[in-house]
Amino acid sequence: HLMIDVTGEETGQINGLSVYQNGEYSFGRPSRITCQTYLGQEGVVNIEREAKMSGKIHDKGVLILSGYLGGKYAQEKPLSLSASIAFEQSYSGVDGDSASCAELLTIISSVTGLPLRQDLAITGSMNQRGKVQPIGGVNYKIEGFYQVCESRDLTGEQGVVIPEQNKENLMLKDKIVDSVESGEFNVYTITEIDEAIELFFDRPAEEVHEAVIEALDEMAENLKEMKPGAQKKEDEDIEEDKEEPRH
Amino acid sequence: HLMIDVTGEETGQINGLSVYQNGEYSFGRPSRITCQTYLGQEGVVNIEREAKMSGKIHDKGVLILSGYLGGKYAQEKPLSLSASIAFEQSYSGVDGDSASCAELLTIISSVTGLPLRQDLAITGSMNQRGKVQPIGGVNYKIEGFYQVCESRDLTGEQGVVIPEQNKENLMLKDKIVDSVESGEFNVYTITEIDEAIELFFDRPAEEVHEAVIEALDEMAENLKEMKPGAQKKEDEDIEEDKEEPRH
Amino acid sequence: HLMIDVTGEETGQINGLSVYQNGEYSFGRPSRITCQTYLGQEGVVNIEREAKMSGKIHDKGVLILSGYLGGKYAQEKPLSLSASIAFEQSYSGVDGDSASCAELLTIISSVTGLPLRQDLAITGSMNQRGKVQPIGGVNYKIEGFYQVCESRDLTGEQGVVIPEQNKENLMLKDKIVDSVESGEFNVYTITEIDEAIELFFDRPAEEVHEAVIEALDEMAENLKEMKPGAQKKEDEDIEEDKEEPRH
Amino acid sequence: HLMIDVTGEETGQINGLSVYQNGEYSFGRPSRITCQTYLGQEGVVNIEREAKMSGKIHDKGVLILSGYLGGKYAQEKPLSLSASIAFEQSYSGVDGDSASCAELLTIISSVTGLPLRQDLAITGSMNQRGKVQPIGGVNYKIEGFYQVCESRDLTGEQGVVIPEQNKENLMLKDKIVDSVESGEFNVYTITEIDEAIELFFDRPAEEVHEAVIEALDEMAENLKEMKPGAQKKEDEDIEEDKEEPRH
Amino acid sequence: HLMIDVTGEETGQINGLSVYQNGEYSFGRPSRITCQTYLGQEGVVNIEREAKMSGKIHDKGVLILSGYLGGKYAQEKPLSLSASIAFEQSYSGVDGDSASCAELLTIISSVTGLPLRQDLAITGSMNQRGKVQPIGGVNYKIEGFYQVCESRDLTGEQGVVIPEQNKENLMLKDKIVDSVESGEFNVYTITEIDEAIELFFDRPAEEVHEAVIEALDEMAENLKEMKPGAQKKEDEDIEEDKEEPRH
Amino acid sequence: HLMIDVTGEETGQINGLSVYQNGEYSFGRPSRITCQTYLGQEGVVNIEREAKMSGKIHDKGVLILSGYLGGKYAQEKPLSLSASIAFEQSYSGVDGDSASCAELLTIISSVTGLPLRQDLAITGSMNQRGKVQPIGGVNYKIEGFYQVCESRDLTGEQGVVIPEQNKENLMLKDKIVDSVESGEFNVYTITEIDEAIELFFDRPAEEVHEAVIEALDEMAENLKEMKPGAQKKEDEDIEEDKEEPRH
Ligand SMILES: [Ca+2]
Ligand SMILES: [Ca+2]
Ligand SMILES: [Ca+2]
Ligand SMILES: [Ca+2]
Ligand SMILES: [Ca+2]
Ligand SMILES: [Ca+2]
Ligand SMILES: [Ca+2]
Ligand SMILES: [Ca+2]
Ligand SMILES: [Ca+2]
Ligand SMILES: [Ca+2]
Ligand SMILES: [Ca+2]
Ligand SMILES: [Ca+2]
Repeated sequence: HLMIDVTGEETGQINGLSVYQNGEYSFGRPSRITCQTYLGQEGVVNIEREAKMSGKIHDKGVLILSGYLGGKYAQEKPLSLSASIAFEQSYSGVDGDSASCAELLTIISSVTGLPLRQDLAITGSMNQRGKVQPIGGVNYKIEGFYQVCESRDLTGEQGVVIPEQNKENLMLKDKIVDSVESGEFNVYTITEIDEAIELFFDRPAEEVHEAVIEALDEMAENLKEMKPGAQKKEDEDIEEDKEEPRH
Repeated sequence: HLMIDVTGEETGQINGLSVYQNGEYSFGRPSRITCQTYLGQEGVVNIEREAKMSGKIHDKGVLILSGYLGGKYAQEKPLSLSASIAFEQSYSGVDGDSASCAELLTIISSVTGLPLRQDLAITGSMNQRGKVQPIGGVNYKIEGFYQVCESRDLTGEQGVVIPEQNKENLMLKDKIVDSVESGEFNVYTITEIDEAIELFFDRPAEEVHEAVIEALDEMAENLKEMKPGAQKKEDEDIEEDKEEPRH
Repeated sequence: HLMIDVTGEETGQINGLSVYQNGEYSFGRPSRITCQTYLGQEGVVNIEREAKMSGKIHDKGVLILSGYLGGKYAQEKPLSLSASIAFEQSYSGVDGDSASCAELLTIISSVTGLPLRQDLAITGSMNQRGKVQPIGGVNYKIEGFYQVCESRDLTGEQGVVIPEQNKENLMLKDKIVDSVESGEFNVYTITEIDEAIELFFDRPAEEVHEAVIEALDEMAENLKEMKPGAQKKEDEDIEEDKEEPRH
Repeated sequence: HLMIDVTGEETGQINGLSVYQNGEYSFGRPSRITCQTYLGQEGVVNIEREAKMSGKIHDKGVLILSGYLGGKYAQEKPLSLSASIAFEQSYSGVDGDSASCAELLTIISSVTGLPLRQDLAITGSMNQRGKVQPIGGVNYKIEGFYQVCESRDLTGEQGVVIPEQNKENLMLKDKIVDSVESGEFNVYTITEIDEAIELFFDRPAEEVHEAVIEALDEMAENLKEMKPGAQKKEDEDIEEDKEEPRH
Repeated sequence: HLMIDVTGEETGQINGLSVYQNGEYSFGRPSRITCQTYLGQEGVVNIEREAKMSGKIHDKGVLILSGYLGGKYAQEKPLSLSASIAFEQSYSGVDGDSASCAELLTIISSVTGLPLRQDLAITGSMNQRGKVQPIGGVNYKIEGFYQVCESRDLTGEQGVVIPEQNKENLMLKDKIVDSVESGEFNVYTITEIDEAIELFFDRPAEEVHEAVIEALDEMAENLKEMKPGAQKKEDEDIEEDKEEPRH
Repeated sequence: HLMIDVTGEETGQINGLSVYQNGEYSFGRPSRITCQTYLGQEGVVNIEREAKMSGKIHDKGVLILSGYLGGKYAQEKPLSLSASIAFEQSYSGVDGDSASCAELLTIISSVTGLPLRQDLAITGSMNQRGKVQPIGGVNYKIEGFYQVCESRDLTGEQGVVIPEQNKENLMLKDKIVDSVESGEFNVYTITEIDEAIELFFDRPAEEVHEAVIEALDEMAENLKEMKPGAQKKEDEDIEEDKEEPRH
């Protein structure tokens, strides 16, 4: 029952890439990572960690996302954000930091409402300043996503995003090499998270960051309004009464 | 002393479905899950976890509910809600995330005061974005609820709600298959939590979500009123003096 | 040195019932449970748990009380209450949830100042919505209280309150059966906490709940007054200067 | 180097009584318990517990003091008090609740500035509602204090305060019995903490409780003044400028 | 690389005295204890404890300092102080409470900016009310500081401060006895922390306490100013713009 | 994949020096330490510790940084700063305090936006008052950085910063000694953190501290503005609307 989309766009949902071991045999598989963000002050909530299903290196990777978000977006205002990140349908624990790029993208998507491409999968860790760092098991991971896509027919738009520094580890099966060469499947390499942002949101990174800032400003304002002593602008009130729940 | 209702409606109370093991022998049984919500800022309180009677996967399931609630209802205002969830008469611990759909429904019922159908039972996990995910032991669980209903006479309205993706696992006893075919018992399959909402509250999901938002707005306003510096509207005060405790 | 009252009324103090094991031999004994409530925001403080002398099931039982109190009394205002519950003269730890009805009654008594009958003892767990659930060891427990009362002479008003569903477990010694039949001793069965409230406070449950709400409103107002920016009504101040400590 | 006073009065300092075991041999000894109270909201800080040198039963005893203080003094205002309790010169951990009466007296002394008699020692646990409960080792404890007093010459005013219910355990050495009979040494028995208050502060309990309330009111007011938005009364300011640190 | 000063004055830095064991052989050595205080509400931060390098008795000693500070300086205002205490160059953990006098002196020095004499070292524990209590290993400790001073040439002003009650344990080497007799080295005994204050700050204890109160008042005022709704006095602002960081 | 810069300048990023053991063989290697600072009140967040990948001595080192920052910059206002420190690409845990000088420099760089020289690496622990303390493995560490620089060609500006007190431990390979003598490589020794500040920021320490204070003042003001009741100055608002996210 692998619940994975390989076409279209969705908000707050991305395809990560994991390696599994079955005795001597290793194989890769995409996994769905989701994020929900909302008004609050909890910062990035790592659901796997809260449920004690997360290894130390995964925890470190998520903590680094908080550092990135703070450094990038919280110079003028503290973050008024709770972002809840979960590995869907994962019951045996998560480790490693190779999902940190993926996790950041879901946060940005959920905050802004901008959808993420589902025909791409990503693996790669990032540091606090947005640099992408190499990860392990890159060939298994690419094959894992290739297989799922192929089983549902290749669209030509599908592909994986990997750290530039993993390029030298590439040893893909002939079939995949051929697909890449013929343009049926794509392998993108990146050195900065901004490149991943541009690929997944299909627009300039700068535009995305501005959307984040706008959304966070609105959230900060909403949080402030909730506190006693705060006065709402009358026109805001009217606009708000019309707002519906998200779907 | 199995305290389970299989007819009528109740607020903040639902029939979940559990599988028990007795040596080689497995069997299903409904269990009552209740929720009480109230003004506060604790979010979803998982009583089993607080009492250290909850497994990691159950904890993860409940944490995901917080993500869903935040993403769905806390874009404009932070949640001013404490929701206490308990497995009644459960003394040996709870694990698994197959009750997360059930738990969400009790929260919604308690917040809005809208009653839940007691002639249905539900099993199914949900993700942060409201998608329903398959679970284990579906046949035992259906049989467990069927037996309790049958022992108290089938009404024709009774049934279970299960994830769409578990449909392929169905291998029910002939007796139950016959009851379903003859309309004496029902098996509903769902892919989105909204379908469960419509079945249990017997009205459009949209109407239920609006009732939640209205109730949460009232709670947020009440919380704000409690803080110093806040002024009450005079007419509110009068209305409040007439309010009685819930029963 | 068993410090137990079996006549009269006291505030914030009740007779619970416990079963002890001495090798092969089991016996019941009443135990004094007390509650002190005061202005604060800690909610229900389970002293046994704070001192690490409480088992998981007892913890769950007390957590459920918080759910009940929130759902019943905190729809309009958050609870401004700290309620400290202790098993007096208990040095070896407490488990089980059979004292949860007793504990709730002490909270209500302490909040309102209404006294509890000391010629009754109670055993029974309750759920978040006020339903009473069956417990174990009912015969030993009844005998335990009967013996203490008998040793101090039966008044005819004394008795125990037990869950309705434990009625079928009753196998009392002839002597007690005779006492019950002759009206020397009483066994009351209940299905809702409200029935216990009526027995112990000797007035309609509704009247008691209103007294709780009134007391909690006064507490909420007092807490608000303590915060800066708050202004006291002049007449309140005068009344307060006359208030004495409780005895 | 036993730092114990057996004459005079001191604030926030009392003689407790402990039993020590040395192989087969048991003996009692007074121990100094001190309390410092100050503006804050930590409530009763059990230093032994904070340093992980306290057993569960001692912890329970101190937690019960919080219940007593809340119930007695925090009906109108939350406590604005931090009270730090320590067993001086105790390096090997503390257990049991037989010091809880002593501890309460030091809190009251420190809050009010009223001195405690140093020619008395006390042993006894109390419940949340001020009732005194029996303790163990009463004979060793009395002998321990008697010996220290005797070694520094008996004044005729010296003595110990014990729970009424321990009277039946008394089996004192002839020498002590003679001293008590001749009025050289005193054994006081109590059933309520108020009796201990009257013995140690040498004035009516009611007067002491009023002094506590007055001191707590002043503390609550001082805490409120510290918060922004608060305005000081001009005359208060002047008075405060003259206040010196305590000695 | 023992970084110890034995002449001059420094702020927030003192010479403590420790005993080390090397197989059968014991020896004393001075160790540098530092304190940094700043605006905040964390109270006394025991860095060794935060880093899990502190034993229980050391923790108790530091907790007692909080009691002392609260009782001495927080009757009118809560402490607006964070005080961070560290054993410099200590990598293997700290236990015992014989440094508590030293630690208090560094807090006072850092809060007031008043320098501490570096030609003195101190050992001694204190209780919550400022009484000095005896400690172990006094001879080794004195020898340890004597050796360091001697190796850098005795000034005649150098010496150690020890609890009065340790006087009876003194068994110093002839050389040190001679140095003390000839005025080349000094051993001061104290019973109250105020005596240590006078020795290390070289002024009346009362003057030092007043400087603490003044500094704490300034800190409380600064903390209050930081909160919204607070207005600064114009002249304060001007003065503050000229303030430089501390060196 | 060692991601290390050995030329140019970067903000919030520095070259630390670590020693690794491989069986009998030890060697040094530079490691990248980064910091992101942002508006908040968490103080210094040690990501390694949060992820349980940090030893006690490393924790102590980072805690000491908080003491330094408080003492240096938080006399007039509490710190409104969250500073997240991470060892990039470190997956097996960190211990020792020899990176504390490096960590402080990254905090200062991130707060002020002033870049750090990347052609230098630093090892050295600091105390709460800014004194630099000796560390272990100095020769391996110097060789480690020398090798990386040499492999990318020596610029003549490159070098390491070490504690003055480690000078006596220096036993460098002839090749490095020659490079130092010929001015191809540099070894700087320091006794105060201010000397490191001057080397890495290439300007007077005083100027850097003033930039920190200015930045912290701006942060404190921004945090205050976020709270309800706060009013923004109109011109500030305009300036802020033009501010872009950091890159
Ligand atoms: Ca690229
Ligand atoms: Ca808005
Ligand atoms: Ca369906
Ligand atoms: Ca209302
Ligand atoms: Ca009944
Ligand atoms: Ca009032
Ligand atoms: Ca008496
Ligand atoms: Ca005052
Ligand atoms: Ca002296
Ligand atoms: Ca100022
Ligand atoms: Ca130098
Ligand atoms: Ca600004």
